[in-house]
Amino acid sequence: SQARKIVILPGDGIGPEIIAEGRKVLDAINEQYNLGLSMETCVFGGAAYDETGTPLPESTLNACRDSAAILLGAIGGPKYDKAPRELRPERGLLGLRSELGLFANLRPALLYPELAAASSLKPELVAGLDLMIVRELTGGIYFGQPRGIEERNGERVGFNTMVYSESEIRRIGIRAFEIARQRGSRLCSVDKMNVLEVSELWREIMIDVSKDYPDVELTHMFVDNAAMQLVRAPKQFDVMVTSNLFGDVLSDAAAMLTGSIGMLPSASLNEAGQGMYEPIHGSAPDIAGKGIANPLATILSVSMMLRYTLKEAEAADAIDAAVAQVLAQGYRCQDIATGQSEEKVINTTEMGDAVIAAL
Amino acid sequence: SQARKIVILPGDGIGPEIIAEGRKVLDAINEQYNLGLSMETCVFGGAAYDETGTPLPESTLNACRDSAAILLGAIGGPKYDKAPRELRPERGLLGLRSELGLFANLRPALLYPELAAASSLKPELVAGLDLMIVRELTGGIYFGQPRGIEERNGERVGFNTMVYSESEIRRIGIRAFEIARQRGSRLCSVDKMNVLEVSELWREIMIDVSKDYPDVELTHMFVDNAAMQLVRAPKQFDVMVTSNLFGDVLSDAAAMLTGSIGMLPSASLNEAGQGMYEPIHGSAPDIAGKGIANPLATILSVSMMLRYTLKEAEAADAIDAAVAQVLAQGYRCQDIATGQSEEKVINTTEMGDAVIAAL
Ligand SMILES: CC(C)[C@H](C(=O)O)[C@@H](O)C(=O)O
Ligand SMILES: CC(C)[C@H](C(=O)O)[C@@H](O)C(=O)O
Repeated sequence: SQARKIVILPGDGIGPEIIAEGRKVLDAINEQYNLGLSMETCVFGGAAYDETGTPLPESTLNACRDSAAILLGAIGGPKYDKAPRELRPERGLLGLRSELGLFANLRPALLYPELAAASSLKPELVAGLDLMIVRELTGGIYFGQPRGIEERNGERVGFNTMVYSESEIRRIGIRAFEIARQRGSRLCSVDKMNVLEVSELWREIMIDVSKDYPDVELTHMFVDNAAMQLVRAPKQFDVMVTSNLFGDVLSDAAAMLTGSIGMLPSASLNEAGQGMYEPIHGSAPDIAGKGIANPLATILSVSMMLRYTLKEAEAADAIDAAVAQVLAQGYRCQDIATGQSEEKVINTTEMGDAVIAAL
Repeated sequence: SQARKIVILPGDGIGPEIIAEGRKVLDAINEQYNLGLSMETCVFGGAAYDETGTPLPESTLNACRDSAAILLGAIGGPKYDKAPRELRPERGLLGLRSELGLFANLRPALLYPELAAASSLKPELVAGLDLMIVRELTGGIYFGQPRGIEERNGERVGFNTMVYSESEIRRIGIRAFEIARQRGSRLCSVDKMNVLEVSELWREIMIDVSKDYPDVELTHMFVDNAAMQLVRAPKQFDVMVTSNLFGDVLSDAAAMLTGSIGMLPSASLNEAGQGMYEPIHGSAPDIAGKGIANPLATILSVSMMLRYTLKEAEAADAIDAAVAQVLAQGYRCQDIATGQSEEKVINTTEMGDAVIAAL
């Protein structure tokens, strides 16, 4: 049934390799917990452009619409730099977000104790880091109209529109407050209210939403200061909520604080709870096909899928525990290896196998 | 004469305290090098709002127009949060940038060897950091039209426009290439070309400008990746050039990498070479009036003024050397003190005196 259908989009670069491991874990957990999930693999991104001439074929979009959740590997690569703008892999991703209304992007930045040394920050500043960024994903300057390049006063001008309506701000606000309530009950809304009108409305609505969440502490920060504070003292944050563009930048900065972006999953949810789940690390064309990519972010994306869309918290906990265990056992893919003697550096499939063994 | 007139804007918070020390150094260097500079102090920011009802009084604007350079302390504070939007201190700053056409914002991020421990990054990743961010300052979403909050389909919508013309991109590009040529000859242009049309034009024009600078290596990076790379390996960069909003975020992140924002000056230049010089740290209302603020960023802003507008490189070098010397002597204001035994923690005026003594 639709409520149990998972669409799998391997995508480009290392996508197929890491998805194979994510799939292995998903299959195992499906059986172990009797979840009754059915899987369907579709073509997407650059691979779909190569095969069908478009990064988001109609058949893939329909399969996604008809699914409970989507597991995405990664898309893009230098091969597609010369493709027409509207047919580049990223357009497929933006199209899917928009078509499915996946407005709530959850970007956890979590530092595993064993990997603290991988961070470029001093260990004491990041040890125990557990931050959640809630990024609005279907509005703002990514989708705002008018946009384009046109001739004005004898020269070309490029323009985009950063736009948010009250209802768009309210629904991402509600989502963020709900998440904060389930965590440390502190929410920091990031805007540029001292310069932008769109941020003025953003802040006003966040304050309005906060009235329904007296148990959650709401603070506000300008985006430039937020970027500073993430570098200075990231553990001051619990949950951050921000617009599409600011979230793009801050969530990547926050991810990099952990030093191990090969470990970080993400979720993109719509009103109905349908979700797309993907590792944040991208398609890494330089190591594609070598079998050395770290599949843990994809495996943790499976865990997020179980938790946020399928409401199978027990199965999700099992995956999280298995990942923690393989790290504790010293297993590392090359991206998170630091050369310590306790480490056992393994490849993509071995890491998938290790997680299955730990399950 | 106008070519030798310096307007001083103390502003708010710690502004007057740090400006007093900057002024002391400027007076000393004026005499020592026989520069023939004349100084005039004007009211600006929140202080001007309190006194005259507007953050940028006509008389201040006229004095600034009629000057060679402006030395600004800092503006703003919680006291003005409730002032009408158009009369907040920041609006004075944005107005001054715009009225004087100060389109080129130079934001060095330099880590002094003695202060490496202050960084939140591991010392080996930041030791020797010397990065220059060139931020476009009078265009983009800061000033783009249309902008506002209005009713659409029964709800309010906030909107701003990110807009750049070819000529705006070209002139900041030229400035950045010129600066890169005088440094490590590597320029990284930061955009969001995979999503924004305005960035498509930005990248195209940067590539076009690069044809006149075959000796400078031009690379491109998406803003989200740039934020990551600054955290991961900031020393990979020599000069970065980017738009107003991206530059706002990235330059603050880069500054914080040094761990000592109390040390960082900035310049904002127009076509004619006229410039506004200011420390990047802001008005720090929490320590205002205590006499403990670090005046070194202001003193280094005086140095930038001598170098970039007044073309007095020798005098600028003398200030830079004096600052390096006081650091080597162990003098620290509290913001950059780390508790090591060689350090002598001193206050604002003592630091100004120490620099004068070293001159
Ligand atoms: C590929 C790109 C369009 C995308 C974005 O900017 O949203 C990516 O950076 C992300 O954060 O998922
Ligand atoms: C005060 C504010 C308007 C300003 C800006 O955003 O440009 C500040 O953050 C800066 O970077 O100088």
